[in-house]
Amino acid sequence: MTAELICVGTELLLGDILNTNAQYLSRELAELGISVLHQHVVGDNVARLKELVNTARARSDLLIFSGGLGPTEDDLTKETVADAFEDTLRFDPEEWQKIVDFFARTGRTPTENNRKQAMVPVKGHKLPNAHGTAPGAWFEDANGHCAALMPGVPREMKAMWQEQVRPILERRQNCTIHSRTLHVLGGESRIAEKVGSLFDSENPTVAIYCKTGESEIRVTARAATAAEAEADCNAALDKLRDRLGDAAYDVDVPALEYTVVRALREHHLHAATAESCTGGLVAERLTNVPGSSEVFGYGFVTYAEGAKSKLLGVDPALIEQYNVVSGPVAVAMALGAQRVSGADVAVALTGIAGPGGALPGKPVGTVYLGGCDARNHKVYLMRLTLGGYRERDIIRTRAALYALDMLRRMALDLPLPEALQAESDCLTDPDSLNL
Amino acid sequence: MTAELICVGTELLLGDILNTNAQYLSRELAELGISVLHQHVVGDNVARLKELVNTARARSDLLIFSGGLGPTEDDLTKETVADAFEDTLRFDPEEWQKIVDFFARTGRTPTENNRKQAMVPVKGHKLPNAHGTAPGAWFEDANGHCAALMPGVPREMKAMWQEQVRPILERRQNCTIHSRTLHVLGGESRIAEKVGSLFDSENPTVAIYCKTGESEIRVTARAATAAEAEADCNAALDKLRDRLGDAAYDVDVPALEYTVVRALREHHLHAATAESCTGGLVAERLTNVPGSSEVFGYGFVTYAEGAKSKLLGVDPALIEQYNVVSGPVAVAMALGAQRVSGADVAVALTGIAGPGGALPGKPVGTVYLGGCDARNHKVYLMRLTLGGYRERDIIRTRAALYALDMLRRMALDLPLPEALQAESDCLTDPDSLNL
Repeated sequence: MTAELICVGTELLLGDILNTNAQYLSRELAELGISVLHQHVVGDNVARLKELVNTARARSDLLIFSGGLGPTEDDLTKETVADAFEDTLRFDPEEWQKIVDFFARTGRTPTENNRKQAMVPVKGHKLPNAHGTAPGAWFEDANGHCAALMPGVPREMKAMWQEQVRPILERRQNCTIHSRTLHVLGGESRIAEKVGSLFDSENPTVAIYCKTGESEIRVTARAATAAEAEADCNAALDKLRDRLGDAAYDVDVPALEYTVVRALREHHLHAATAESCTGGLVAERLTNVPGSSEVFGYGFVTYAEGAKSKLLGVDPALIEQYNVVSGPVAVAMALGAQRVSGADVAVALTGIAGPGGALPGKPVGTVYLGGCDARNHKVYLMRLTLGGYRERDIIRTRAALYALDMLRRMALDLPLPEALQAESDCLTDPDSLNL
Repeated sequence: MTAELICVGTELLLGDILNTNAQYLSRELAELGISVLHQHVVGDNVARLKELVNTARARSDLLIFSGGLGPTEDDLTKETVADAFEDTLRFDPEEWQKIVDFFARTGRTPTENNRKQAMVPVKGHKLPNAHGTAPGAWFEDANGHCAALMPGVPREMKAMWQEQVRPILERRQNCTIHSRTLHVLGGESRIAEKVGSLFDSENPTVAIYCKTGESEIRVTARAATAAEAEADCNAALDKLRDRLGDAAYDVDVPALEYTVVRALREHHLHAATAESCTGGLVAERLTNVPGSSEVFGYGFVTYAEGAKSKLLGVDPALIEQYNVVSGPVAVAMALGAQRVSGADVAVALTGIAGPGGALPGKPVGTVYLGGCDARNHKVYLMRLTLGGYRERDIIRTRAALYALDMLRRMALDLPLPEALQAESDCLTDPDSLNL
């Protein structure tokens, strides 16, 4: 099956908003095994819309629309597509009542224009909108070519897609789909090296999406039944986890901090943070997780040198001897945070986020990460080399990610990451730090 | 002048990447007074590309391309467009040398395929690429219709657009453009109310872009000379500032924290933060500014109730009496942060970010912001009502924004925001807080 995507909206043509709908729908269609040949954006102009709909309908099986369902006179997408698909529209009292009720909840009454939104296809059918006033529409012509019209508001569009349109397409593709996302620390090249040929599979498909310091691997299986699709998907996930080891930290989570908070909670541990170069980013990410107060109570942002001594009890002589950006200071900060807060585990970061501040032998991007753990009374130290990119926010983001990962590893009793053990001076013997 | 945007890339059709180029170029073209009629995305398919180029060229004056300039056999955009615009390509030894040199720097030699990238228009001209290997191309047909081909990598595209393509278009539009962005606290509706008719101006154009808790107003003036454009732009900015008052916090800055750090630096002030519900977000934003160590040294993330007493000296009896989410506790936290850190100014936040944790009379989104100031020895308190959205990260983002704004107001000796004075119980008398 081939498809074209048509997003309607002058605000897209003016660049006022970013077209995230196009990416979302393209990815979903790819998962369904439907080839997207074109993406289009047009404004609220009937002549241009008509030309486009006729061209697209002639060459593709399926047209997916978002936007253009509003109540103003300019919004003529539904009328134009109905015409091209040899359908007409009728007034739907049930949809009208929903619109009247929606306005009533905010103390308003709908205008005559809003009646347009209650018009639904006669030969095709409406697509109910669970999150807004405008229903969508489904059209089908004599050749079996189809069109799905959805709202432009991403939240409304996504719900309608998942609940109404995608199920129709799964039935037509004669399959069900099961997707899961594996979250992995590390960049694309290192992951590709380990996973290699798995990316070539046609079913399940395995696609990688890169983020700063980590990647998402999306596995999508198509099969005749939901149970088969799920089993195929999970088998592929197991293979990926086998090859990636503990760098693969979770499946279908919003972010690493969710994994960390869950791990801490399951092991009844409290964590504390002491941050210099990341300035509170690790604490901010932990507390972004609802319920994180069960596992996190104390964070120290010791951005000034004096703050490290005053709040965490780091010996000024140690700072004098090793420099404030050093392994011993990172470990002393972690031990101080643990002691002052009474937490079970603590992590600490000190480094050079740039653009200024480079020291001899310590370029921008040099970050020391210290940790002290609950069950083994061990301290951990990693020298991260996050330079190269040399952009302040990327260095901070990656440093915070390593700190969260260290909390995960301490909570789950996992060793430090292999790659870093090899390339940096990881110490686990506190005596060698001369604290 | 009318234009169409054509982005070439299978990765866009698969939804692997978000099409930020389309938004960027659409906004730039709008500023130049060029109407974008269509945006398209196509893959590396010559037949479909050819059909599209011919259709678009027939109806629009200008075609702007991004992507499709790579070295592989699939990348045939340049050849296809040359053909449609009745031009041919020639091998350019200078561009080839650049490619050879580029490869040499990473110890590689280019393949035969890379020679494609050194092909440039015969009747049109090349567009040098300051940041990558592939030069762009400019084509023009007998009717004066033009095409600009640029790389798909955003950094390379933006540089080529700003340095090569935009100047050509400014000359053709017979004008120069001057744009500035005013940063304003508050949402679109409140701003529109105050600014009203200014948005209707055709030159300078005034466009508003909403962000969480704040907005950007982009002013773009077109004039025959650069000096006129700049003067027109600045005159419009002055009008906007007149109407918006001190809610308009800066012009052309990356974010509010840059304004805050500059204000603190100019007044030789040090700031400290004490955060509960925002969990370090205010400190994180302050320290994201290069050089912020000059004005910020101490941040306290007192997420646990005990941490507020232990680190900031908040009297447990005060917490018992007023609840931990209360005005007196917010102010006591700010005073504690100021005292422990020795900072001149301090802000503190305590609130309910949700989804759980609502208290009687204090729904999710209730946040108390306390501050204590340097020059007047005053304390400030605002009860923010950030609910309604009721999404954790939006509540935290908006609360942090208000805290940063309070730092700005204390540094610049501005009163608290009018809107909040009216709608919440702002206190400036510490005695009334029973501390």
